[in-house]
Amino acid sequence: MPSPTVDDTVLDALFEVLRQRRHAAPEESYVASLHHKGLNKILEKIGEEATETLLAAKDAESGEQSKQQALIAETADLWFHSLVMLSHLGLDHQAVINELARRFGVSGHDEKASRNKT
Amino acid sequence: MPSPTVDDTVLDALFEVLRQRRHAAPEESYVASLHHKGLNKILEKIGEEATETLLAAKDAESGEQSKQQALIAETADLWFHSLVMLSHLGLDHQAVINELARRFGVSGHDEKASRNKT
Amino acid sequence: MPSPTVDDTVLDALFEVLRQRRHAAPEESYVASLHHKGLNKILEKIGEEATETLLAAKDAESGEQSKQQALIAETADLWFHSLVMLSHLGLDHQAVINELARRFGVSGHDEKASRNKT
Amino acid sequence: MPSPTVDDTVLDALFEVLRQRRHAAPEESYVASLHHKGLNKILEKIGEEATETLLAAKDAESGEQSKQQALIAETADLWFHSLVMLSHLGLDHQAVINELARRFGVSGHDEKASRNKT
Repeated sequence: MPSPTVDDTVLDALFEVLRQRRHAAPEESYVASLHHKGLNKILEKIGEEATETLLAAKDAESGEQSKQQALIAETADLWFHSLVMLSHLGLDHQAVINELARRFGVSGHDEKASRNKT
Repeated sequence: MPSPTVDDTVLDALFEVLRQRRHAAPEESYVASLHHKGLNKILEKIGEEATETLLAAKDAESGEQSKQQALIAETADLWFHSLVMLSHLGLDHQAVINELARRFGVSGHDEKASRNKT
Repeated sequence: MPSPTVDDTVLDALFEVLRQRRHAAPEESYVASLHHKGLNKILEKIGEEATETLLAAKDAESGEQSKQQALIAETADLWFHSLVMLSHLGLDHQAVINELARRFGVSGHDEKASRNKT
Repeated sequence: MPSPTVDDTVLDALFEVLRQRRHAAPEESYVASLHHKGLNKILEKIGEEATETLLAAKDAESGEQSKQQALIAETADLWFHSLVMLSHLGLDHQAVINELARRFGVSGHDEKASRNKT
């Protein structure tokens, strides 16, 4: 049996959280406030987080652990805001994952199916 | 039982592909050629793909399906190159996923565990 | 005599203002506060303003005047923060202008010289 | 008399070159080919050059002269492509310069006028 991995339920669960928070009160939810401000604001955040990711990666090249942790955090910010963008436009993280699977000839279905059988 | 999802094995399998291709001949593998050219080249690609994602998102706001598909493809490019960046610096997609899980209080372990039990 | 233009004295005067404000109290000057926060903060601002310029340009394609004015303002922000970056690193707007002149085979010297003679 | 500066005639002359090349054959002029490919291609270049400017600035922090020269070249690329963007949308570098002058309370007219009097 493959060692347990957590990615899918995290991305799925996170996307579900994003979907629910979209319609929360803007003053109570950061996600709702982003949707309320509109697409340009969401895209500005992606530009910001992409920039911060680049700068953090340059700093992480030293191998210093706190810099590496900062890069992980910035990359998480970048992925998070791209999930919000997809949600805002009625799209889905699963479509992106499927596109990656298609390109690289990797499939989650088979392995997961076999894992669930164990 | 939850409906089957594929994200985790895709991201895991993709990251494993990236790890293997890192040491391929640069002229035979795009991933190897990126590593060979170094961190700046990888980060330039992230900047490019972030830009193309923003522009594609603006165009996808129309709801036109071909524009939405283009946005999916650009977002996949952006995620892909950020995975290459992590790999180049000896880091891991799992750390990013864990960071997202921690922030949003979502966990893949429990749900997956329960699913595998079914 | 050529019609009067104002670019050079504006860029020169602006760069001189930036140089003077660099050593002002950070709480009294935005420029000083940027220098105080360091290069990464200045570069984050360039990434932000580049993103906002792209989004404003997409919106200005409609020809609507308020959108065009917004694009002018964002481009000014982008140029301004790149001047702060140059100043922070001990470099000079004049070097960038010279590089542009060299590439395009245009020269300000001759025309200015002739103008000053009039 | 102030030492001669060249910015204005360079930016003016460069913008005039851009205006003329806009309608050249795309296969003979890089500027014409950018206009021919359209706004998204021009904005992609701005995103690319902004990214390369950030990375070059990080590398130039060492003070190494070749890195500083590379930063000058990238900044010139960034400004150049933002001039092409303005030209593509029927706008003008002068509007950006005026905006900077307005914000910083600097004016080229007076100084130039006084200089021409000397």
